[in-house]
Amino acid sequence: MTAFQSRFAPLPEFATPALGSVTFPWGFQACGIHAGIKRRRRDLGLLVSDHPAVSAAFFTGNRAAAAPVTVTREESATGALRAVVVNSGIANACSGPQDIDDARRMRDLAAALLDLPPGEVAVSSTGVIGEPLPMEIVEQGIERAVVKLTSEGGEDFAAAIRTTDSSDKTAALSFDARGGEIRLGFAAKGAGMIAPNMATTLCFVTCDAPVPLGLWRAMMTSAVEESFNRITVDGQESTNDMVLGIANGAAGIVLGDCDLEQLSEALHAGLLSMALAVVADGEGATTTVCLCIEGAVDSAEAERVARAIADSPLVKTAIYGRDANWGRIVQAAGMGLSRNIHGPLACDVAFDGIEVARRCHPVHLDETEELQLMEAVAAPELRIMVDLHRGRGSAVVYFSDLTNHYVHLNAGVRT
Amino acid sequence: MTAFQSRFAPLPEFATPALGSVTFPWGFQACGIHAGIKRRRRDLGLLVSDHPAVSAAFFTGNRAAAAPVTVTREESATGALRAVVVNSGIANACSGPQDIDDARRMRDLAAALLDLPPGEVAVSSTGVIGEPLPMEIVEQGIERAVVKLTSEGGEDFAAAIRTTDSSDKTAALSFDARGGEIRLGFAAKGAGMIAPNMATTLCFVTCDAPVPLGLWRAMMTSAVEESFNRITVDGQESTNDMVLGIANGAAGIVLGDCDLEQLSEALHAGLLSMALAVVADGEGATTTVCLCIEGAVDSAEAERVARAIADSPLVKTAIYGRDANWGRIVQAAGMGLSRNIHGPLACDVAFDGIEVARRCHPVHLDETEELQLMEAVAAPELRIMVDLHRGRGSAVVYFSDLTNHYVHLNAGVRT
Repeated sequence: MTAFQSRFAPLPEFATPALGSVTFPWGFQACGIHAGIKRRRRDLGLLVSDHPAVSAAFFTGNRAAAAPVTVTREESATGALRAVVVNSGIANACSGPQDIDDARRMRDLAAALLDLPPGEVAVSSTGVIGEPLPMEIVEQGIERAVVKLTSEGGEDFAAAIRTTDSSDKTAALSFDARGGEIRLGFAAKGAGMIAPNMATTLCFVTCDAPVPLGLWRAMMTSAVEESFNRITVDGQESTNDMVLGIANGAAGIVLGDCDLEQLSEALHAGLLSMALAVVADGEGATTTVCLCIEGAVDSAEAERVARAIADSPLVKTAIYGRDANWGRIVQAAGMGLSRNIHGPLACDVAFDGIEVARRCHPVHLDETEELQLMEAVAAPELRIMVDLHRGRGSAVVYFSDLTNHYVHLNAGVRT
Repeated sequence: MTAFQSRFAPLPEFATPALGSVTFPWGFQACGIHAGIKRRRRDLGLLVSDHPAVSAAFFTGNRAAAAPVTVTREESATGALRAVVVNSGIANACSGPQDIDDARRMRDLAAALLDLPPGEVAVSSTGVIGEPLPMEIVEQGIERAVVKLTSEGGEDFAAAIRTTDSSDKTAALSFDARGGEIRLGFAAKGAGMIAPNMATTLCFVTCDAPVPLGLWRAMMTSAVEESFNRITVDGQESTNDMVLGIANGAAGIVLGDCDLEQLSEALHAGLLSMALAVVADGEGATTTVCLCIEGAVDSAEAERVARAIADSPLVKTAIYGRDANWGRIVQAAGMGLSRNIHGPLACDVAFDGIEVARRCHPVHLDETEELQLMEAVAAPELRIMVDLHRGRGSAVVYFSDLTNHYVHLNAGVRT
């Protein structure tokens, strides 16, 4: 899926899409090389801002967090991260007592070669859990990577962070602010262990706008909450999830309030586009579903119902089978309802606007509607609306279907 | 799987296994016929005690409960249920505004033909959600069933309650109490929508011991809690789950304290055997895993961690792939830990006694151990032990693997 191709994440009208990735904004350099952790593919990426920058970072909520998450989480407090070194192939999670030291050595070596304080360099890993990093290969890789940094290296960087992804996930856009052009770049990886809880998967965002740290953090928090925290492929929160946004001010202009609003909107659209690319490329996925829960008692109930439906293997396999099986949706919804509110469940279910159940009872469809329904469930993107008629709480979650290919991949591949 | 063939649910030493099902105990009659709800297979069952009886019933916690659950739940308060009419093929859940009336008509017709008060007859359904029962066929079926009741009808009854089950699930046992022999019979159905929350799936238990209502309920509650509430196939709590136990005293003896203890133990073993048969025959399942969580902060945390692991599609597919992938177990465990207790996760993981991870780090195995590990994960039953080293909370859950066949079944079949 190309960025901004999803109807669920349209490009804002004021913005222009661009080719490119994290090096599309001014003042960023990146590269992606084959260090030798994987057999053949690129497996080591480096991204750095030419200037000091403000940063906002988000990490997995999983208590079995990987070493690079622990290390970068500590550093991120200052909000001054301007570079990241990433490897794919091995997650450096549960890999032995040396795991934290290995993550620090990656960071320290990159910092030394980039002539930066270690506190300005993030480290990130993705891949197999339980195996130690081959540090000699990683260190040689970092040394080779530093000399390959270029302002055109964004695509190689995006390639180097992939694991079972079937394609690179990148986006870039620009818009005209009062004082001049502002650019944003995105690179992400996904595929498995994807669930909506804090920053899920890896995603790196660059921006050349000059933004105060507090404002950048607020913008990123809101955009992550409505994008990466709203997706699920298999309900599995990874050990290594990280979203890192770096804004370096290289555009050299001053932003007004209106510009900041546009920046926030563009950031939302870009992150949602990346998050949806992760869902669309979920392991074995054939369909992206936008699930809207309305009429819940409160937003917590809406969220629980949304997750219960989005992570139900029965719902996910029905969608794979192109079956508008609202019975399984109602059954899964029943698992997520607040126990302390009584009364029977009486919800409406609609597929792309075609109501198939009203108050939990089947709706008769005429021939035209049946045809529309068949077309809706056959499409690569589907919107499902569930109204619980209990209150005013709502939630949106994006999820993928469950296919034979998911089982095949995960029964055969060590991740 | 034949009853009591699982090493996780051995037959108590004092008991003798028997051929048979719910009509093995004295004073019960049953039948199972083809009414015509399904194309060819038996789809309507009737079970009745010749004498007044005490009953204990357990229902789904799903808020989208089916009509027969709602109807039987009301009746069960008196503890005097002595008969049940069950259909398979259609769940009578979310099937329209007539669903409750249809469930009552099934019950009332069976009661009238059996010459019993309606309050002594349970009604139960299993099958497709969202379609109305063909009441004419059901009513004719009940009329035909009543005249087919026999004390040898337990097997036919067990056949009539099946949906996607690949085999009948029955067990029978007897033991010598002080005053004479006591008999227990079991029939269950399972396959999909199986998760550990209250009575999951359908299971009917008969017993000819004379037990006071309060004691029978206490015994059944404890046995259900340690069997049907401890299994998961796909984490999906069904709309129609029900476990019903009927004790009619037809053995005609008086029980002593020691007899009651044996009865309770036999009930546990029988119900666990049925629950494990449901897991072993889970849709597409090839492996039954007994997962033991130890060292949790409390039992609630142990339960959450157990469920997180047992319902993780990554863990389930790894087991299908015969991969002792403890990394995915640690990752899933990390999702279930209490958030308010700090410190990194440092758990041990063992497969059938072979420790593969200690404090979240890989354990080196010698050649013999590697071979034992390969044999352990290749077997149809596997024990996984996870010690969290955080406290004294523990939990046990039984679950099945996730296979291509599960996806195939559920992407193609309406359930």
